[in-house]
Amino acid sequence: MKKLSIGVFDCITILGPGLLGASIAQAVRERALVKAIHIWAHRAETRLACEQANWCDQVFADPKAAVEAADLVVLATPVDSIIDLLGQIGAHLNPGTLVTDVGSTKGMIARHGATQVTAPSTFIGAHPMAGSEKSGWRYATPTFFEGRACFITPTEDTPAERVDPVARFWKRLGMDIHTVSPDLHDEIVANISHLPHIVAATLCSLLANQPEEWMGFSGNGLKDTTRVAGGSPEMWLPILQHNEEEILRTIRAFQDELHALERSIHNRKPFEVKAFLERSQHFRKRLPPGDSPG
Amino acid sequence: MKKLSIGVFDCITILGPGLLGASIAQAVRERALVKAIHIWAHRAETRLACEQANWCDQVFADPKAAVEAADLVVLATPVDSIIDLLGQIGAHLNPGTLVTDVGSTKGMIARHGATQVTAPSTFIGAHPMAGSEKSGWRYATPTFFEGRACFITPTEDTPAERVDPVARFWKRLGMDIHTVSPDLHDEIVANISHLPHIVAATLCSLLANQPEEWMGFSGNGLKDTTRVAGGSPEMWLPILQHNEEEILRTIRAFQDELHALERSIHNRKPFEVKAFLERSQHFRKRLPPGDSPG
Repeated sequence: MKKLSIGVFDCITILGPGLLGASIAQAVRERALVKAIHIWAHRAETRLACEQANWCDQVFADPKAAVEAADLVVLATPVDSIIDLLGQIGAHLNPGTLVTDVGSTKGMIARHGATQVTAPSTFIGAHPMAGSEKSGWRYATPTFFEGRACFITPTEDTPAERVDPVARFWKRLGMDIHTVSPDLHDEIVANISHLPHIVAATLCSLLANQPEEWMGFSGNGLKDTTRVAGGSPEMWLPILQHNEEEILRTIRAFQDELHALERSIHNRKPFEVKAFLERSQHFRKRLPPGDSPG
Repeated sequence: MKKLSIGVFDCITILGPGLLGASIAQAVRERALVKAIHIWAHRAETRLACEQANWCDQVFADPKAAVEAADLVVLATPVDSIIDLLGQIGAHLNPGTLVTDVGSTKGMIARHGATQVTAPSTFIGAHPMAGSEKSGWRYATPTFFEGRACFITPTEDTPAERVDPVARFWKRLGMDIHTVSPDLHDEIVANISHLPHIVAATLCSLLANQPEEWMGFSGNGLKDTTRVAGGSPEMWLPILQHNEEEILRTIRAFQDELHALERSIHNRKPFEVKAFLERSQHFRKRLPPGDSPG
Protein backbone atom coordinates (compact mmCIF):
# COMPACT_ATOMS: atom_id res chain seq x y z
CA MET A 1 0.00 0.00 0.00
CA LYS A 2 1.36 3.32 -1.19
CA LYS A 3 2.21 5.87 1.48
CA LEU A 4 0.40 9.17 1.16
CA SER A 5 2.18 12.37 2.09
CA ILE A 6 -0.36 14.21 4.24
CA GLY A 7 -2.64 16.05 1.91
CA VAL A 8 -0.31 15.78 -1.05
CA PHE A 9 -0.84 13.13 -3.66
CA ASP A 10 1.51 11.89 -6.35
CA CYS A 11 -1.05 11.29 -9.05
CA ILE A 12 -4.62 12.51 -9.28
CA THR A 13 -7.01 11.07 -11.81
CA ILE A 14 -10.02 13.18 -12.72
CA LEU A 15 -12.85 11.38 -14.45
CA GLY A 16 -14.82 13.91 -16.48
CA PRO A 17 -13.03 17.20 -17.29
CA GLY A 18 -16.16 19.37 -17.42
CA LEU A 19 -16.57 22.72 -15.69
CA LEU A 20 -15.81 21.22 -12.27
CA GLY A 21 -13.32 18.54 -13.31
CA ALA A 22 -11.21 20.90 -15.41
CA SER A 23 -11.38 23.58 -12.69
CA ILE A 24 -10.04 21.01 -10.21
CA ALA A 25 -7.22 20.12 -12.63
CA GLN A 26 -6.33 23.79 -13.10
CA ALA A 27 -6.42 24.52 -9.37
CA VAL A 28 -4.32 21.44 -8.59
CA ARG A 29 -1.75 22.39 -11.22
CA GLU A 30 -1.58 26.02 -10.15
CA ARG A 31 -1.07 25.03 -6.53
CA ALA A 32 1.33 22.21 -7.45
CA LEU A 33 -0.59 19.76 -5.28
CA VAL A 34 0.37 16.64 -7.25
CA LYS A 35 3.09 15.42 -9.57
CA ALA A 36 0.82 14.07 -12.27
CA ILE A 37 -2.72 14.81 -13.45
CA HIS A 38 -4.38 11.99 -15.37
CA ILE A 39 -7.71 12.55 -17.06
CA TRP A 40 -10.38 10.33 -18.52
CA ALA A 41 -12.86 11.89 -20.90
CA HIS A 42 -15.70 10.14 -22.65
CA ARG A 43 -15.55 12.23 -25.83
CA ALA A 44 -12.64 12.09 -28.27
CA GLU A 45 -12.92 15.83 -28.86
CA THR A 46 -12.49 16.53 -25.14
CA ARG A 47 -9.51 14.15 -24.95
CA LEU A 48 -7.88 16.07 -27.78
CA ALA A 49 -8.40 19.35 -25.88
CA CYS A 50 -6.93 17.80 -22.71
CA GLU A 51 -3.83 16.70 -24.59
CA GLN A 52 -3.10 20.34 -25.38
CA ALA A 53 -3.84 21.61 -21.86
CA ASN A 54 -1.12 22.32 -19.32
CA TRP A 55 -3.40 20.95 -16.60
CA CYS A 56 -3.35 17.41 -18.00
CA ASP A 57 -0.31 15.13 -18.13
CA GLN A 58 -1.92 12.03 -19.56
CA VAL A 59 -5.32 11.42 -21.06
CA PHE A 60 -7.22 8.13 -21.22
CA ALA A 61 -10.12 6.73 -23.21
CA ASP A 62 -10.71 3.97 -20.65
CA PRO A 63 -11.60 4.88 -17.05
CA LYS A 64 -10.06 1.63 -15.76
CA ALA A 65 -6.67 2.45 -17.27
CA ALA A 66 -7.02 6.08 -16.15
CA VAL A 67 -7.15 5.23 -12.44
CA GLU A 68 -4.32 2.69 -12.33
CA ALA A 69 -1.53 5.12 -11.39
CA ALA A 70 -3.68 7.33 -9.13
CA ASP A 71 -3.54 7.73 -5.38
CA LEU A 72 -6.49 10.13 -5.57
CA VAL A 73 -9.42 9.72 -7.96
CA VAL A 74 -12.04 12.45 -8.40
CA LEU A 75 -15.29 11.54 -10.15
CA ALA A 76 -16.55 14.73 -11.80
CA THR A 77 -19.37 13.60 -14.07
CA PRO A 78 -23.17 13.85 -13.69
CA VAL A 79 -24.36 11.79 -10.71
CA ASP A 80 -25.67 8.85 -12.76
CA SER A 81 -22.28 8.49 -14.46
CA ILE A 82 -20.55 8.66 -11.09
CA ILE A 83 -22.39 5.49 -10.14
CA ASP A 84 -21.53 3.80 -13.44
CA LEU A 85 -17.88 4.75 -13.09
CA LEU A 86 -17.65 3.51 -9.49
CA GLY A 87 -18.70 0.11 -10.82
CA GLN A 88 -16.08 0.21 -13.57
CA ILE A 89 -13.04 1.42 -11.66
CA GLY A 90 -13.47 -0.35 -8.31
CA ALA A 91 -11.39 -3.41 -9.25
CA HIS A 92 -8.68 -1.40 -10.98
CA LEU A 93 -7.65 0.95 -8.20
CA ASN A 94 -4.13 1.06 -6.89
CA PRO A 95 -4.49 -0.37 -3.33
CA GLY A 96 -4.96 2.43 -0.82
CA THR A 97 -6.32 4.90 -3.34
CA LEU A 98 -8.74 7.53 -2.09
CA VAL A 99 -11.78 8.15 -4.27
CA THR A 100 -13.93 11.25 -4.00
CA ASP A 101 -16.47 12.96 -6.25
CA VAL A 102 -18.30 16.22 -6.92
CA GLY A 103 -21.88 14.90 -7.18
CA SER A 104 -24.80 17.02 -6.00
CA THR A 105 -26.39 13.99 -4.32
CA LYS A 106 -24.63 11.80 -1.82
CA GLY A 107 -26.82 9.04 -0.34
CA MET A 108 -27.02 6.78 -3.37
CA ILE A 109 -23.43 7.53 -4.39
CA ALA A 110 -22.15 6.73 -0.87
CA ARG A 111 -23.93 3.35 -0.96
CA HIS A 112 -22.37 2.49 -4.32
CA GLY A 113 -19.00 3.88 -3.22
CA ALA A 114 -18.97 1.62 -0.17
CA THR A 115 -19.64 -1.54 -2.20
CA GLN A 116 -17.51 -0.75 -5.26
CA VAL A 117 -14.46 0.81 -3.59
CA THR A 118 -13.24 -1.60 -0.92
CA ALA A 119 -10.38 -1.60 1.58
CA PRO A 120 -7.59 -0.74 1.41
CA SER A 121 -9.05 1.80 -1.03
CA THR A 122 -11.73 4.14 0.28
CA PHE A 123 -14.55 6.20 -1.20
CA ILE A 124 -15.36 9.48 0.58
CA GLY A 125 -17.99 11.55 -1.18
CA ALA A 126 -17.74 15.30 -1.55
CA HIS A 127 -19.94 18.05 -2.92
CA PRO A 128 -18.23 21.33 -3.67
CA MET A 129 -20.99 23.99 -3.64
CA ALA A 130 -19.62 25.74 -6.68
CA GLY A 131 -21.49 25.60 -9.90
CA SER A 132 -22.87 27.51 -12.79
CA GLU A 133 -25.58 27.19 -15.34
CA LYS A 134 -22.69 26.93 -17.80
CA SER A 135 -20.97 23.63 -18.42
CA GLY A 136 -17.82 22.36 -20.09
CA TRP A 137 -14.06 22.73 -19.56
CA ARG A 138 -14.00 25.97 -21.58
CA TYR A 139 -15.52 27.78 -18.56
CA ALA A 140 -13.13 26.21 -16.06
CA THR A 141 -10.96 28.38 -13.84
CA PRO A 142 -8.41 27.55 -11.11
CA THR A 143 -10.22 29.91 -8.70
CA PHE A 144 -13.59 28.21 -9.20
CA PHE A 145 -13.75 26.75 -5.69
CA GLU A 146 -12.28 29.58 -3.65
CA GLY A 147 -14.38 30.70 -0.73
CA ARG A 148 -17.16 28.18 -1.43
CA ALA A 149 -18.57 25.56 0.91
CA CYS A 150 -17.67 21.91 0.34
CA PHE A 151 -19.50 19.01 1.92
CA ILE A 152 -17.51 15.90 2.85
CA THR A 153 -19.75 12.91 3.50
CA PRO A 154 -18.00 9.95 5.13
CA THR A 155 -20.27 7.20 6.40
CA GLU A 156 -20.22 5.46 9.78
CA ASP A 157 -18.01 2.79 8.20
CA THR A 158 -15.40 5.15 6.75
CA PRO A 159 -12.04 4.76 8.56
CA ALA A 160 -11.57 8.08 10.38
CA GLU A 161 -7.91 8.49 9.35
CA ARG A 162 -8.88 8.33 5.66
CA VAL A 163 -11.20 11.34 5.89
CA ASP A 164 -8.53 13.90 6.66
CA PRO A 165 -6.52 13.68 3.40
CA VAL A 166 -9.70 14.12 1.35
CA ALA A 167 -10.85 17.07 3.46
CA ARG A 168 -7.39 18.64 3.11
CA PHE A 169 -7.46 18.17 -0.62
CA TRP A 170 -10.70 20.18 -0.98
CA LYS A 171 -9.50 22.72 1.55
CA ARG A 172 -6.38 23.33 -0.52
CA LEU A 173 -8.62 24.33 -3.44
CA GLY A 174 -9.82 27.17 -1.21
CA MET A 175 -13.01 25.61 0.13
CA ASP A 176 -14.69 25.68 3.55
CA ILE A 177 -15.19 22.09 4.63
CA HIS A 178 -18.41 20.81 6.28
CA THR A 179 -18.55 17.16 7.28
CA VAL A 180 -22.06 15.66 7.34
CA SER A 181 -23.63 12.26 6.71
CA PRO A 182 -24.69 11.50 3.12
CA ASP A 183 -28.37 11.54 4.13
CA LEU A 184 -28.18 14.86 5.97
CA HIS A 185 -26.34 16.27 2.96
CA ASP A 186 -29.19 15.21 0.71
CA GLU A 187 -31.76 16.82 2.99
CA ILE A 188 -29.80 20.08 3.15
CA VAL A 189 -29.20 20.41 -0.58
CA ALA A 190 -32.79 19.43 -1.40
CA ASN A 191 -33.67 22.65 0.44
CA ILE A 192 -30.91 25.06 -0.51
CA SER A 193 -30.11 23.89 -4.04
CA HIS A 194 -32.51 21.37 -5.59
CA LEU A 195 -35.74 23.13 -4.60
CA PRO A 196 -34.45 26.53 -5.82
CA HIS A 197 -33.60 24.87 -9.13
CA ILE A 198 -37.04 23.29 -9.39
CA VAL A 199 -38.80 26.53 -8.55
CA ALA A 200 -36.76 28.49 -11.11
CA ALA A 201 -37.36 25.81 -13.73
CA THR A 202 -41.10 25.73 -13.00
CA LEU A 203 -41.26 29.49 -13.52
CA CYS A 204 -39.49 29.06 -16.87
CA SER A 205 -41.63 26.14 -17.92
CA LEU A 206 -44.77 28.18 -17.16
CA LEU A 207 -43.58 31.37 -18.85
CA ALA A 208 -42.60 29.38 -21.94
CA ASN A 209 -46.36 29.29 -22.68
CA GLN A 210 -46.65 33.08 -22.75
CA PRO A 211 -46.16 35.35 -25.78
CA GLU A 212 -42.53 35.51 -26.89
CA GLU A 213 -42.52 39.34 -26.92
CA TRP A 214 -43.24 39.52 -23.17
CA MET A 215 -39.77 38.26 -22.48
CA GLY A 216 -38.25 41.37 -24.01
CA PHE A 217 -39.87 43.34 -21.16
CA SER A 218 -38.22 41.34 -18.41
CA GLY A 219 -36.00 43.05 -15.89
CA ASN A 220 -33.11 41.69 -13.87
CA GLY A 221 -35.54 40.21 -11.35
CA LEU A 222 -36.76 37.52 -13.73
CA LYS A 223 -33.25 36.92 -15.05
CA ASP A 224 -31.77 36.37 -11.61
CA THR A 225 -34.69 34.34 -10.31
CA THR A 226 -34.45 31.93 -13.24
CA ARG A 227 -30.69 31.87 -13.90
CA VAL A 228 -30.11 28.36 -12.53
CA ALA A 229 -32.79 26.94 -14.84
CA GLY A 230 -30.31 27.45 -17.68
CA GLY A 231 -28.43 24.43 -16.26
CA SER A 232 -28.06 21.21 -18.17
CA PRO A 233 -30.97 18.70 -18.10
CA GLU A 234 -28.38 15.90 -18.42
CA MET A 235 -26.96 16.97 -15.07
CA TRP A 236 -30.26 17.76 -13.34
CA LEU A 237 -32.42 14.78 -14.33
CA PRO A 238 -30.28 12.24 -12.41
CA ILE A 239 -30.07 14.64 -9.44
CA LEU A 240 -33.87 14.74 -9.25
CA GLN A 241 -33.92 10.95 -9.50
CA HIS A 242 -31.22 10.30 -6.88
CA ASN A 243 -32.68 12.67 -4.33
CA GLU A 244 -36.32 11.92 -5.12
CA GLU A 245 -37.55 11.47 -1.57
CA GLU A 246 -36.09 14.66 -0.10
CA ILE A 247 -37.00 16.64 -3.20
CA LEU A 248 -40.64 15.54 -3.09
CA ARG A 249 -40.71 16.54 0.57
CA THR A 250 -39.42 20.04 -0.19
CA ILE A 251 -41.76 20.46 -3.16
CA ARG A 252 -44.71 19.65 -0.92
CA ALA A 253 -43.53 22.04 1.78
CA PHE A 254 -43.14 24.73 -0.88
CA GLN A 255 -46.64 24.05 -2.18
CA ASP A 256 -48.06 24.42 1.34
CA GLU A 257 -46.22 27.73 1.83
CA LEU A 258 -47.41 29.09 -1.52
CA HIS A 259 -50.95 27.90 -0.89
CA ALA A 260 -51.01 29.74 2.45
CA LEU A 261 -49.92 32.94 0.69
CA GLU A 262 -52.52 32.43 -2.02
CA ARG A 263 -55.22 32.15 0.67
CA SER A 264 -53.97 35.29 2.43
CA ILE A 265 -54.11 37.27 -0.82
CA HIS A 266 -57.46 35.83 -1.83
CA ASN A 267 -59.01 36.47 1.59
CA ARG A 268 -57.52 39.97 1.65
CA LYS A 269 -55.50 39.58 4.81
CA PRO A 270 -52.90 42.35 4.43
CA PHE A 271 -51.27 41.62 7.78
CA GLU A 272 -50.69 38.00 6.80
CA VAL A 273 -49.26 38.99 3.42
CA LYS A 274 -47.05 41.62 5.02
CA ALA A 275 -45.79 39.15 7.63
CA PHE A 276 -44.94 36.76 4.79
CA LEU A 277 -43.04 39.46 2.88
CA GLU A 278 -41.20 40.55 6.02
CA ARG A 279 -40.21 36.98 6.91
CA SER A 280 -38.91 36.48 3.36
CA GLN A 281 -37.00 39.74 3.28
CA HIS A 282 -35.49 39.09 6.68
CA PHE A 283 -34.32 35.65 5.58
CA ARG A 284 -32.88 36.97 2.32
CA LYS A 285 -30.94 39.68 4.11
CA ARG A 286 -29.37 37.04 6.35
CA LEU A 287 -27.98 35.06 3.41
CA PRO A 288 -24.23 35.56 3.12
CA PRO A 289 -23.43 37.98 0.31
CA GLY A 290 -21.73 36.56 -2.74
CA ASP A 291 -20.72 37.35 -6.23
CA SER A 292 -22.81 36.21 -9.15
CA PRO A 293 -21.23 34.48 -12.07
CA GLY A 294 -22.36 35.82 -15.48
CA MET B 1 -52.80 76.30 -21.37
CA LYS B 2 -49.02 76.23 -21.32
CA LYS B 3 -47.29 75.22 -24.51
CA LEU B 4 -44.95 72.26 -24.21
CA SER B 5 -41.80 72.14 -26.28
CA ILE B 6 -41.85 68.65 -27.76
CA GLY B 7 -40.31 66.33 -25.23
CA VAL B 8 -38.75 69.10 -23.20
CA PHE B 9 -40.42 70.40 -20.08
CA ASP B 10 -39.71 73.51 -18.11
CA CYS B 11 -40.34 72.17 -14.66
CA ILE B 12 -40.58 68.56 -13.54
CA THR B 13 -41.93 67.68 -10.11
CA ILE B 14 -40.96 64.30 -8.72
CA LEU B 15 -43.06 63.04 -5.85
CA GLY B 16 -40.97 60.60 -3.84
CA PRO B 17 -37.17 60.78 -4.32
CA GLY B 18 -36.48 57.10 -3.62
CA LEU B 19 -34.30 54.86 -5.75
CA LEU B 20 -36.41 55.51 -8.85
CA GLY B 21 -37.42 59.12 -8.18
CA ALA B 22 -33.90 60.28 -7.40
CA SER B 23 -32.52 58.33 -10.38
CA ILE B 24 -35.02 60.16 -12.60
CA ALA B 25 -33.92 63.51 -11.12
CA GLN B 26 -30.26 62.68 -11.69
CA ALA B 27 -30.86 61.49 -15.26
CA VAL B 28 -32.97 64.57 -16.04
CA ARG B 29 -30.30 66.88 -14.67
CA GLU B 30 -27.43 65.13 -16.43
CA ARG B 31 -29.26 65.29 -19.76
CA ALA B 32 -30.48 68.84 -19.11
CA LEU B 33 -34.04 67.87 -19.99
CA VAL B 34 -35.74 70.56 -17.86
CA LYS B 35 -35.00 73.94 -16.37
CA ALA B 36 -36.17 73.15 -12.85
CA ILE B 37 -36.51 69.98 -10.77
CA HIS B 38 -38.97 70.24 -7.88
CA ILE B 39 -39.21 67.45 -5.34
CA TRP B 40 -41.69 66.46 -2.68
CA ALA B 41 -40.53 64.10 0.02
CA HIS B 42 -42.58 62.80 2.91
CA ARG B 43 -39.70 62.61 5.39
CA ALA B 44 -37.89 65.70 6.71
CA GLU B 45 -34.58 63.84 6.60
CA THR B 46 -35.00 63.13 2.88
CA ARG B 47 -35.99 66.77 2.22
CA LEU B 48 -32.78 67.86 3.91
CA ALA B 49 -30.74 65.54 1.68
CA CYS B 50 -32.56 66.86 -1.40
CA GLU B 51 -31.72 70.43 -0.48
CA GLN B 52 -28.03 69.54 -0.70
CA ALA B 53 -28.34 67.61 -3.97
CA ASN B 54 -27.50 69.12 -7.36
CA TRP B 55 -30.44 67.22 -8.84
CA CYS B 56 -33.03 69.18 -6.86
CA ASP B 57 -33.80 72.90 -7.29
CA GLN B 58 -36.64 73.21 -4.82
CA VAL B 59 -37.98 70.86 -2.19
CA PHE B 60 -41.52 70.79 -0.75
CA ALA B 61 -43.20 69.32 2.31
CA ASP B 62 -46.64 69.56 0.68
CA PRO B 63 -47.37 67.66 -2.53
CA LYS B 64 -50.02 70.21 -3.60
CA ALA B 65 -47.51 73.07 -3.48
CA ALA B 66 -44.86 70.87 -5.11
CA VAL B 67 -46.84 70.37 -8.33
CA GLU B 68 -47.97 73.97 -8.86
CA ALA B 69 -45.09 75.05 -11.11
CA ALA B 70 -44.75 71.75 -12.95
CA ASP B 71 -45.59 70.91 -16.53
CA LEU B 72 -44.57 67.28 -15.87
CA VAL B 73 -45.27 65.44 -12.63
CA VAL B 74 -43.78 62.01 -11.91
CA LEU B 75 -45.24 59.98 -9.06
CA ALA B 76 -42.45 57.76 -7.77
CA THR B 77 -43.77 56.30 -4.51
CA PRO B 78 -45.16 52.84 -3.66
CA VAL B 79 -48.36 52.15 -5.62
CA ASP B 80 -50.74 52.80 -2.72
CA SER B 81 -49.22 56.25 -2.18
CA ILE B 82 -49.47 56.98 -5.90
CA ILE B 83 -53.24 56.65 -5.55
CA ASP B 84 -53.29 58.84 -2.43
CA LEU B 85 -51.18 61.48 -4.12
CA LEU B 86 -53.32 61.51 -7.27
CA GLY B 87 -56.24 62.46 -5.05
CA GLN B 88 -54.25 65.21 -3.37
CA ILE B 89 -52.64 66.89 -6.38
CA GLY B 90 -55.44 66.67 -8.99
CA ALA B 91 -57.00 70.05 -8.18
CA HIS B 92 -53.62 71.83 -7.87
CA LEU B 93 -52.10 71.05 -11.24
CA ASN B 94 -51.08 73.76 -13.63
CA PRO B 95 -53.60 73.38 -16.51
CA GLY B 96 -52.18 71.18 -19.25
CA THR B 97 -49.76 69.39 -16.96
CA LEU B 98 -48.81 65.84 -17.84
CA VAL B 99 -48.74 63.38 -14.96
CA THR B 100 -46.97 60.03 -15.13
CA ASP B 101 -45.75 57.51 -12.58
CA VAL B 102 -43.41 54.57 -11.99
CA GLY B 103 -45.86 52.14 -10.35
CA SER B 104 -45.53 48.41 -10.88
CA THR B 105 -49.31 48.09 -11.31
CA LYS B 106 -51.34 50.10 -13.77
CA GLY B 107 -55.04 49.19 -13.88
CA MET B 108 -56.09 50.68 -10.55
CA ILE B 109 -53.72 53.64 -10.93
CA ALA B 110 -55.06 54.39 -14.43
CA ARG B 111 -58.64 54.43 -13.11
CA HIS B 112 -57.69 56.87 -10.33
CA GLY B 113 -55.57 58.92 -12.72
CA ALA B 114 -58.49 59.34 -15.10
CA THR B 115 -60.82 60.64 -12.39
CA GLN B 116 -58.32 62.74 -10.41
CA VAL B 117 -56.34 64.32 -13.24
CA THR B 118 -58.81 65.93 -15.63
CA ALA B 119 -58.53 67.89 -18.89
CA PRO B 120 -56.66 69.94 -19.80
CA SER B 121 -54.23 68.00 -17.58
CA THR B 122 -53.66 64.34 -18.39
CA PHE B 123 -52.49 61.26 -16.52
CA ILE B 124 -50.55 58.69 -18.53
CA GLY B 125 -49.20 55.83 -16.47
CA ALA B 126 -45.76 54.39 -16.96
CA HIS B 127 -43.77 51.52 -15.52
CA PRO B 128 -40.04 51.62 -16.04
CA MET B 129 -38.81 48.01 -15.70
CA ALA B 130 -35.78 48.99 -13.71
CA GLY B 131 -35.56 48.12 -10.08
CA SER B 132 -33.52 46.62 -7.37
CA GLU B 133 -34.00 44.94 -4.04
CA LYS B 134 -32.33 48.06 -2.68
CA SER B 135 -34.30 51.19 -1.99
CA GLY B 136 -33.66 54.83 -1.20
CA TRP B 137 -32.06 57.79 -2.99
CA ARG B 138 -28.61 56.76 -1.81
CA TYR B 139 -28.58 54.00 -4.44
CA ALA B 140 -29.82 56.29 -7.24
CA THR B 141 -27.82 56.70 -10.43
CA PRO B 142 -28.46 58.74 -13.61
CA THR B 143 -27.92 55.60 -15.74
CA PHE B 144 -30.50 53.57 -13.83
CA PHE B 145 -32.97 53.39 -16.73
CA GLU B 146 -30.62 52.95 -19.66
CA GLY B 147 -31.39 50.03 -21.90
CA ARG B 148 -34.41 48.94 -19.85
CA ALA B 149 -37.98 48.45 -21.01
CA CYS B 150 -40.61 51.03 -20.04
CA PHE B 151 -44.34 50.45 -20.32
CA ILE B 152 -46.55 53.42 -21.21
CA THR B 153 -50.21 52.72 -20.50
CA PRO B 154 -52.62 55.27 -21.97
CA THR B 155 -56.30 54.30 -21.84
CA GLU B 156 -58.88 54.45 -24.65
CA ASP B 157 -59.83 57.93 -23.40
CA THR B 158 -56.29 59.38 -23.36
CA PRO B 159 -55.92 62.10 -26.06
CA ALA B 160 -53.46 60.60 -28.57
CA GLU B 161 -51.35 63.77 -28.90
CA ARG B 162 -50.67 63.77 -25.15
CA VAL B 163 -49.04 60.33 -25.18
CA ASP B 164 -46.05 61.29 -27.27
CA PRO B 165 -44.41 63.80 -24.86
CA VAL B 166 -44.60 61.26 -22.02
CA ALA B 167 -43.17 58.49 -24.18
CA ARG B 168 -40.38 60.80 -25.32
CA PHE B 169 -39.59 61.72 -21.74
CA TRP B 170 -39.01 58.10 -20.75
CA LYS B 171 -37.16 57.43 -24.00
CA ARG B 172 -34.76 60.28 -23.22
CA LEU B 173 -33.82 58.48 -20.00
CA GLY B 174 -32.54 55.69 -22.24
CA MET B 175 -35.56 53.38 -22.11
CA ASP B 176 -37.24 51.18 -24.74
CA ILE B 177 -40.89 52.19 -24.84
CA HIS B 178 -43.75 49.67 -25.08
CA THR B 179 -47.30 51.03 -25.22
CA VAL B 180 -49.96 48.68 -23.84
CA SER B 181 -53.30 49.01 -22.05
CA PRO B 182 -53.21 49.17 -18.23
CA ASP B 183 -54.93 45.78 -17.98
CA LEU B 184 -52.59 44.04 -20.41
CA HIS B 185 -49.70 45.59 -18.50
CA ASP B 186 -50.97 44.08 -15.28
CA GLU B 187 -51.32 40.65 -16.88
CA ILE B 188 -47.79 40.81 -18.31
CA VAL B 189 -46.06 41.95 -15.12
CA ALA B 190 -48.01 39.46 -13.00
CA ASN B 191 -46.18 36.84 -15.07
CA ILE B 192 -42.72 38.31 -15.58
CA SER B 193 -42.29 40.26 -12.34
CA HIS B 194 -44.87 39.66 -9.62
CA LEU B 195 -44.92 35.86 -9.84
CA PRO B 196 -41.08 35.65 -9.83
CA HIS B 197 -41.12 37.83 -6.71
CA ILE B 198 -43.72 35.63 -5.01
CA VAL B 199 -41.86 32.45 -5.87
CA ALA B 200 -38.56 33.83 -4.58
CA ALA B 201 -40.25 35.09 -1.41
CA THR B 202 -41.99 31.74 -0.86
CA LEU B 203 -38.64 29.98 -1.09
CA CYS B 204 -37.24 32.38 1.53
CA SER B 205 -40.24 32.10 3.78
CA LEU B 206 -39.94 28.29 3.69
CA LEU B 207 -36.17 28.18 4.21
CA ALA B 208 -36.50 30.58 7.16
CA ASN B 209 -37.79 27.52 9.07
CA GLN B 210 -34.61 25.53 8.47
CA PRO B 211 -31.46 25.50 10.65
CA GLU B 212 -29.59 28.79 10.45
CA GLU B 213 -26.26 27.04 9.69
CA TRP B 214 -27.59 25.56 6.44
CA MET B 215 -27.57 29.01 4.91
CA GLY B 216 -23.79 29.21 5.20
CA PHE B 217 -23.65 26.33 2.70
CA SER B 218 -25.65 28.11 0.05
CA GLY B 219 -24.14 28.75 -3.37
CA ASN B 220 -24.86 31.43 -5.91
CA GLY B 221 -27.89 29.52 -7.14
CA LEU B 222 -29.90 30.20 -3.99
CA LYS B 223 -28.65 33.77 -3.81
CA ASP B 224 -29.66 34.61 -7.34
CA THR B 225 -32.96 32.76 -7.18
CA THR B 226 -33.99 34.68 -4.07
CA ARG B 227 -32.38 38.09 -4.69
CA VAL B 228 -35.64 39.93 -5.41
CA ALA B 229 -37.15 38.74 -2.12
CA GLY B 230 -34.84 41.24 -0.41
CA GLY B 231 -37.20 43.95 -1.73
CA SER B 232 -39.21 46.14 0.58
CA PRO B 233 -42.52 44.77 1.98
CA GLU B 234 -43.85 48.36 1.98
CA MET B 235 -43.46 48.41 -1.79
CA TRP B 236 -44.60 44.85 -2.48
CA LEU B 237 -47.67 44.55 -0.25
CA PRO B 238 -49.68 47.17 -2.21
CA ILE B 239 -48.50 45.65 -5.52
CA LEU B 240 -49.92 42.28 -4.47
CA GLN B 241 -53.14 44.03 -3.45
CA HIS B 242 -53.52 46.12 -6.62
CA ASN B 243 -52.87 43.26 -8.97
CA GLU B 244 -54.65 40.62 -6.91
CA GLU B 245 -56.69 39.05 -9.69
CA GLU B 246 -53.84 38.54 -12.17
CA ILE B 247 -51.48 37.49 -9.40
CA LEU B 248 -53.85 34.84 -8.10
CA ARG B 249 -54.22 33.55 -11.65
CA THR B 250 -50.43 33.22 -12.08
CA ILE B 251 -50.01 31.60 -8.66
CA ARG B 252 -52.57 28.96 -9.61
CA ALA B 253 -50.93 28.34 -12.98
CA PHE B 254 -47.59 27.97 -11.18
CA GLN B 255 -49.11 25.53 -8.70
CA ASP B 256 -50.47 23.42 -11.57
CA GLU B 257 -47.07 23.39 -13.29
CA LEU B 258 -45.27 22.40 -10.09
CA HIS B 259 -47.85 19.77 -9.27
CA ALA B 260 -47.37 18.21 -12.72
CA LEU B 261 -43.62 18.01 -12.09
CA GLU B 262 -44.18 16.54 -8.64
CA ARG B 263 -46.33 13.82 -10.19
CA SER B 264 -43.71 13.10 -12.86
CA ILE B 265 -41.00 12.71 -10.22
CA HIS B 266 -43.21 10.69 -7.90
CA ASN B 267 -44.36 8.37 -10.70
CA ARG B 268 -40.77 8.03 -11.94
CA LYS B 269 -41.36 9.30 -15.44
CA PRO B 270 -37.85 10.35 -16.49
CA PHE B 271 -38.94 11.40 -19.97
CA GLU B 272 -41.53 13.79 -18.52
CA VAL B 273 -39.02 15.25 -16.05
CA LYS B 274 -36.42 15.62 -18.79
CA ALA B 275 -38.92 17.33 -21.10
CA PHE B 276 -39.74 19.74 -18.28
CA LEU B 277 -36.05 20.52 -17.68
CA GLU B 278 -35.43 20.97 -21.40
CA ARG B 279 -38.42 23.28 -21.82
CA SER B 280 -37.20 25.36 -18.86
CA GLN B 281 -33.62 25.52 -20.06
CA HIS B 282 -34.72 26.44 -23.57
CA PHE B 283 -36.89 29.25 -22.23
CA ARG B 284 -34.11 30.55 -19.97
CA LYS B 285 -31.61 30.61 -22.80
CA ARG B 286 -34.02 32.73 -24.85
CA LEU B 287 -34.23 35.44 -22.18
CA PRO B 288 -32.27 38.51 -23.24
CA PRO B 289 -28.95 38.68 -21.41
CA GLY B 290 -28.55 41.44 -18.88
CA ASP B 291 -26.37 42.67 -16.13
CA SER B 292 -27.25 42.03 -12.52
CA PRO B 293 -27.21 44.77 -9.97
CA GLY B 294 -25.49 43.91 -6.69
